[in-house]
Amino acid sequence: MFESAELGHTVSKAEYNAEVPNLREQLLDVQFELAEKKPFPVILIISGVDGAGKGQTMNTLHFWMDPRNIHAHALGEATDEELERPAMWRYWRKLPPRGSIGAFFGSWYSHPMRMRIDGGKDCDYLDSYLVDFLRFERMLADEGALILKFWLHLSKDALKQRLTELESDKATKWRVTKKDWDRYERYDDLRPVAEHVLRRTSTGHAPWIVVESSDERYRNLTVGRTLLKALQARLGEKVQATTASVPVQALAQDDNVNLLTNLDYTKELSKKEYKKQLELYQGRLHKLSRSPKFRDHSVVAVFEGNDAAGKGGAIRRVIGAMDSRFYNIVPIAAPTDEEKVQPYLWRFWRHLPRKGHSVIFDRSWYGRVLVERVEGFCAEGDWMRAYGEINDFEEEMARHGVIVVKFWLSITAEEQLKRFQEREATGYKRFKLTDEDWRNREKWDEYSAAVCDMVERTSTEIAPWTLVEANSKYYARIKVLKTLCKRLEAEL
Amino acid sequence: MFESAELGHTVSKAEYNAEVPNLREQLLDVQFELAEKKPFPVILIISGVDGAGKGQTMNTLHFWMDPRNIHAHALGEATDEELERPAMWRYWRKLPPRGSIGAFFGSWYSHPMRMRIDGGKDCDYLDSYLVDFLRFERMLADEGALILKFWLHLSKDALKQRLTELESDKATKWRVTKKDWDRYERYDDLRPVAEHVLRRTSTGHAPWIVVESSDERYRNLTVGRTLLKALQARLGEKVQATTASVPVQALAQDDNVNLLTNLDYTKELSKKEYKKQLELYQGRLHKLSRSPKFRDHSVVAVFEGNDAAGKGGAIRRVIGAMDSRFYNIVPIAAPTDEEKVQPYLWRFWRHLPRKGHSVIFDRSWYGRVLVERVEGFCAEGDWMRAYGEINDFEEEMARHGVIVVKFWLSITAEEQLKRFQEREATGYKRFKLTDEDWRNREKWDEYSAAVCDMVERTSTEIAPWTLVEANSKYYARIKVLKTLCKRLEAEL
Repeated sequence: MFESAELGHTVSKAEYNAEVPNLREQLLDVQFELAEKKPFPVILIISGVDGAGKGQTMNTLHFWMDPRNIHAHALGEATDEELERPAMWRYWRKLPPRGSIGAFFGSWYSHPMRMRIDGGKDCDYLDSYLVDFLRFERMLADEGALILKFWLHLSKDALKQRLTELESDKATKWRVTKKDWDRYERYDDLRPVAEHVLRRTSTGHAPWIVVESSDERYRNLTVGRTLLKALQARLGEKVQATTASVPVQALAQDDNVNLLTNLDYTKELSKKEYKKQLELYQGRLHKLSRSPKFRDHSVVAVFEGNDAAGKGGAIRRVIGAMDSRFYNIVPIAAPTDEEKVQPYLWRFWRHLPRKGHSVIFDRSWYGRVLVERVEGFCAEGDWMRAYGEINDFEEEMARHGVIVVKFWLSITAEEQLKRFQEREATGYKRFKLTDEDWRNREKWDEYSAAVCDMVERTSTEIAPWTLVEANSKYYARIKVLKTLCKRLEAEL
Repeated sequence: MFESAELGHTVSKAEYNAEVPNLREQLLDVQFELAEKKPFPVILIISGVDGAGKGQTMNTLHFWMDPRNIHAHALGEATDEELERPAMWRYWRKLPPRGSIGAFFGSWYSHPMRMRIDGGKDCDYLDSYLVDFLRFERMLADEGALILKFWLHLSKDALKQRLTELESDKATKWRVTKKDWDRYERYDDLRPVAEHVLRRTSTGHAPWIVVESSDERYRNLTVGRTLLKALQARLGEKVQATTASVPVQALAQDDNVNLLTNLDYTKELSKKEYKKQLELYQGRLHKLSRSPKFRDHSVVAVFEGNDAAGKGGAIRRVIGAMDSRFYNIVPIAAPTDEEKVQPYLWRFWRHLPRKGHSVIFDRSWYGRVLVERVEGFCAEGDWMRAYGEINDFEEEMARHGVIVVKFWLSITAEEQLKRFQEREATGYKRFKLTDEDWRNREKWDEYSAAVCDMVERTSTEIAPWTLVEANSKYYARIKVLKTLCKRLEAEL
């Protein structure tokens, strides 16, 4: 894997000086086009052997290009705000928006590689991370990102030579520390791990590019040219709608027997019984939410349901048991323009709670496989891949101790009609019924099919869906509270 | 000050139950209007004697209103990301956008009050904070925020009674800790401090509202009604452009002798001399940027100047000396929609660097007193108050160890014309000249007047302006680098 990066590539000073102005000119041109049209984000990973010149390479790119539109992220130790969220949160918050370039030093690969080399972890440990990274980068690519992963390589001899050179020059002596020599001694441990990682995570959409780095000029030119070519190629592509092939279509449910029609909508509770149980479960929930164990967890609760199914009322009963200082309600409406230039999950990642806190999503990332699917706001390939991406997202949360609870509040078409008509009669402006509500209603069957697919594909052990029969508001609210209590009791 | 909050106000259960539905109805209505029209943000401070029910009051508001649009922020200990920025950063990042309500527990008042009561600090210490808060709240109000500050009051006897009651009930016993009784013992220390703070920071636009809190129902109703009235009043106001009176107009400079015309534009450097000095100062800057002392500081560099004055080239030479992992360049263009619903300084606060890092602003908050003033994008009252707000902003940074450096790159009108014509001839698309550039040029004198006012009003000892004669690019770049080096040497 590193063979061709140990051939001793060099570029003469004359060649370099002749080439650079032309390269810069072209890089600036493509970067300008990128910034103007904002067709996609560019994600660079600058990784490799310590001492191979990662920082200098980046500085060179900054100097060659318009530095206002390349952002370098050196993510070292995680901050406490980062430690309180799932591991990938720190990378999500730094993702470049469309039209700009983000370069990661110490990318997501650093931690598991370090743990493999220095932390005594085995190969399975490393591989379990690599699966995540493959899926993460696949998602980024599907969302349009151009991903280039540079591995700056030095042979052991070249590394020794480089450290010696740096040490012997007064101006650069400070850059060589004992740690660097330790790393040199352990070069033979790094090499096979690096090879393993590069081999298993180099893909067509997110390839590793190994760059021989013993000669600075060769290294800079190679990185610059590679970036230029990739940008030119992507900018030159005809824009076309995603037409990823979808091997399996959703099963057509012709017999009207499905998860939703199968629910018993006659379930109800008397007002008296409701009040009793409300007090009971709110009390239990309150107690759970202030349990010391809760401080190591957080809760992400998702409320989805038919229009007028009573999401708001159910949420209100949940928070009735909680302290407003420790939860946040996030109503999902149209994305802001900062959200529109990011992968679709970005606007949910940014709201993830700290430990000891809860976030309640009033509608959620499931919009992707519900409204966006039914209304055709995204291509079939996009919502089909979303199921897997969503499962990954929820798994990441669960792994970090986030308790993910998801409710679908389900009412019958007749019940919805009744509630719509009541709202029209009431006429409070905050309950105003929009044309959209009536339009959605016309697509009842399509929405039902989408809901059934969603539940089937995303109800997992770590983040199960609870279908709530909601024709009776009392019954629904109690079922929500009870489910939440049981789930928290099981997890804490 | 607390007299009328110790009269023993109570509300009977019957009265409460009769009143609440009506109050809720009206609160929901105004909240809906607020969310729909997004005319202004609402900032609530919920403060007061510990044990007076701050949390319960907030929970009640959440239950009464639409909780999706009220966000409670309990800011306790600062996170490390917060500790690395100026003290007010944590509040800026939580400011509610227009159309929504943000409630702060443990607001900006908490820290200095605690330091006065428990930390052995004197009254002057407290007052030095109060000045900041007055100016901060004035700015928020000028930016349109509706600010209500609630002080939930209990007399010493009432506090004792309340703690005793809570302790005697099994369900609430946990809420009383030894700390609460300690605070009770020290009630007499709190009271005069609270009175002092309330008196000195209660203003027409951000009043303190003292609420007697011995009776829960009275407390809830009073807070709810006050909020309702304030919202109704503000929503009912006719929208009118800010017409704050401006007592002093900018001095008309008729004689064409000003800070800018006074510069010596013939200053230049030969290419040879430039190269020599470039190497010298970049070396010095590089060394400074990796000094251990730098880790306790950060740099905020502002680049402003005439169109085509060479800001980009100067920035490029500065970063040529720095490590791309530790700086970020923020080009200021039109605000995003998330930025538009916040006070105008918000979009700069969000980019402030961590310790050891630098941020270079390519154009900045000075747009408020330059382009926004000249083009009439904001009212005269708005840009006139901006000078003071900007000075406050920079002082906050300086106090936190941020080194604020500001450059105005100045060229003559003739030089600008020459450069515009060269750009037209070159025709690289990244240098394309827009109609706007030509239009700005027609307002040369107005811009010059705005620049002179800006320098006069915002060049301070802690954050001085450096005017850079930029007809010679070589000269300008060296002056920038040299200034930066000297400044860092002085501060580190």
